[in-house]
Amino acid sequence: MATAVSPLAPSTYPDMPAIEGVAIATAEAGIKYRNRTDVLLMRFDEGTSVAGVFTTSKCPSAPVDHCRLALKAGTARALVVNSGNANAFTGKKGVATCEATAKAMAEALGCQPEEVFLASTGVIGEPLDAGKITQQIPALIAGVSGALWREAANAIMTTDTYPKVATRTVQLGDAQVTLNGIAKGAGMIAPDMATMLSFLATDAKIAPAALQALLAEAVAPSFNSVTVDSDTSTSDTLLLFATGKAGHAEVSEAADPRLQPFREALNAMLLDLARQVARDGEGARKEIQVTVSGAVSDASAKRIALSIANSPLVKTAVAGEDANWGRVVMAVGKAGEPAERDRLAIFFGDVRVAVGGERDPAYSEAEASAEMKKDEIAIRVELGLGTGRWTVYSCDLTKDYVAINGDYRS
Amino acid sequence: MATAVSPLAPSTYPDMPAIEGVAIATAEAGIKYRNRTDVLLMRFDEGTSVAGVFTTSKCPSAPVDHCRLALKAGTARALVVNSGNANAFTGKKGVATCEATAKAMAEALGCQPEEVFLASTGVIGEPLDAGKITQQIPALIAGVSGALWREAANAIMTTDTYPKVATRTVQLGDAQVTLNGIAKGAGMIAPDMATMLSFLATDAKIAPAALQALLAEAVAPSFNSVTVDSDTSTSDTLLLFATGKAGHAEVSEAADPRLQPFREALNAMLLDLARQVARDGEGARKEIQVTVSGAVSDASAKRIALSIANSPLVKTAVAGEDANWGRVVMAVGKAGEPAERDRLAIFFGDVRVAVGGERDPAYSEAEASAEMKKDEIAIRVELGLGTGRWTVYSCDLTKDYVAINGDYRS
Repeated sequence: MATAVSPLAPSTYPDMPAIEGVAIATAEAGIKYRNRTDVLLMRFDEGTSVAGVFTTSKCPSAPVDHCRLALKAGTARALVVNSGNANAFTGKKGVATCEATAKAMAEALGCQPEEVFLASTGVIGEPLDAGKITQQIPALIAGVSGALWREAANAIMTTDTYPKVATRTVQLGDAQVTLNGIAKGAGMIAPDMATMLSFLATDAKIAPAALQALLAEAVAPSFNSVTVDSDTSTSDTLLLFATGKAGHAEVSEAADPRLQPFREALNAMLLDLARQVARDGEGARKEIQVTVSGAVSDASAKRIALSIANSPLVKTAVAGEDANWGRVVMAVGKAGEPAERDRLAIFFGDVRVAVGGERDPAYSEAEASAEMKKDEIAIRVELGLGTGRWTVYSCDLTKDYVAINGDYRS
Repeated sequence: MATAVSPLAPSTYPDMPAIEGVAIATAEAGIKYRNRTDVLLMRFDEGTSVAGVFTTSKCPSAPVDHCRLALKAGTARALVVNSGNANAFTGKKGVATCEATAKAMAEALGCQPEEVFLASTGVIGEPLDAGKITQQIPALIAGVSGALWREAANAIMTTDTYPKVATRTVQLGDAQVTLNGIAKGAGMIAPDMATMLSFLATDAKIAPAALQALLAEAVAPSFNSVTVDSDTSTSDTLLLFATGKAGHAEVSEAADPRLQPFREALNAMLLDLARQVARDGEGARKEIQVTVSGAVSDASAKRIALSIANSPLVKTAVAGEDANWGRVVMAVGKAGEPAERDRLAIFFGDVRVAVGGERDPAYSEAEASAEMKKDEIAIRVELGLGTGRWTVYSCDLTKDYVAINGDYRS
């Protein structure tokens, strides 16, 4: 279907600088889509460390299984991604496809298959022919360039309506380091370790264990706080590659104070990419940010925020620009977390609509309605019980979501 | 909005016999709707016992709080229900409305306010004027009749497109007893004790404790296994009244073997009403029955079945008549319950679409597609791990759900 670009797409894209030690190529393998790229190669120089987090699905895709194993060594030489087919629930054929792809790329690059990371996104349950990917290997390797980050983001899209890219440059020790990232999302987005696919690379020199610690810390308030439709994918994969080319002394501990600017940049970039995913949720017309404060713990605040952000009734109310705070009350109530009806306060943006267990005496329908006309809807619930706080990022539920998903496979 | 009657509405309605000891009246109080009834009175003769189950929401409505308290005595003389306003999240005003309504009805009937049960359904957060209801009391009492069950079901509807009624007659001891029930549902339906509103009455003579045990047992596989949109209401209320007029000796224990036909009728009737609620889910065009078998426990099977039935991607696939079993795999995987990808088998109706961790080798797209054209879609997942089994009842997710809920309050 011809889906228009999300009204929440960025108005401009950043120029994506090259990262020393990273070379990129894309190709048209014709796996499912026609007249667009659907395979991505990132080639990394020797000495690249890697960290990753994956879906918590009990039915993960074959590439997720492959990456989990490959990650144990902590070094990477290549990333191969395809769109159009998730290689999930494909049995032994799916495992064989991963093995054949990793082996062919390893032979072409002169590395171990365990240094080749794989990710696939698209339809579940269809066998994926490794040959479609491996026959592109010579052209991919011949075509690599450091400057193709935007093209990389394009090649991994499925029902995304715009490519998701981000970049940051910060000081690390005595060197400037750059951090680039791409992501894809759209539907089946309720990450429980990472979103469907996101890949980051930096020229920083950070040991695998420290890199993993940084990534795990950054993913909680960003990708793990995004939900489009509460449906956690079989394929969620977030990988961070560090080529070590920046010229500073290696950092081996996540607690190293030199990492602070890098850590802040990583956290900000993951949140940036995660919000881009929310803003390009299937059919999305408005971004929703749900903040729950005053909960008994951060974990409790997160569960209540997710209950609100995943509620079809809250999401359709936002789509209808209806300041229907009664549905927020419902979603707080169903979360099963400590909450006291008569201590609740609810805000849309800066407009307090409910307080002390009933409608705010100063409630103005006009003010609330004006808030609902905005592109970004901030819903805040103050529970008045403790200091727990969390923010979750989501989007509205529109007829377009139903249209997109009522006829996706066929 | 002018919503057409659900295509899943019953083709005929049963004749609802009178229940001795129950008198019914409805009225047009103009609470929200115009030109339709919106208040229901059921008057019970002295000696009526009552059982009830309610929402587990942490933000229950004022009438739910009232009923929980009133239930302690276990006897009932009246039930007063209004539609159009849920009297939920209405603070002290909401409590006062309940007190005023119960008091006025108790005075009119010569009973205690604690013998008057209350329920409200409709918009959340708007104050409900008790006067609108109490001024109808004289007309209601003057107009009671035993034969108005269908009218009772009409008066409690909100976005329901058809009234939900059911009746059974069974032997109990040396008497025939009759069991009548009504329900309303539509949206905000993911009961965790009962659906939004359902009321049953019988002329059986059963002590309150035994009645409560029977009801609690019957609600688990019926109303507590229904989900329209995963949104648990603030107002779920299921009440069962027993007038004791049938002429048999009182039954005081739920384990009494004489109760077996009554128990079976109660279970069947709750399932009947619960399925009627699912089939009239907002925007529903197809009923979905999800059965999970081979789980490690019944509770685990239920959680996986709910994960499937609540998945927007599964529900939109059913709406699109797409045999997209990959989304079923996804929903199994995200449930967080024990499941082994390579032991899963998935059926649509009698068509096995996946087995042993991949697409069924004998998979026929034509057979699967034919299955998806039906009104009732049976999805079955066999996990191959144990003997746990559960069935959940739901409906598809259509553009009409979004349309209905994008502009409900205003």
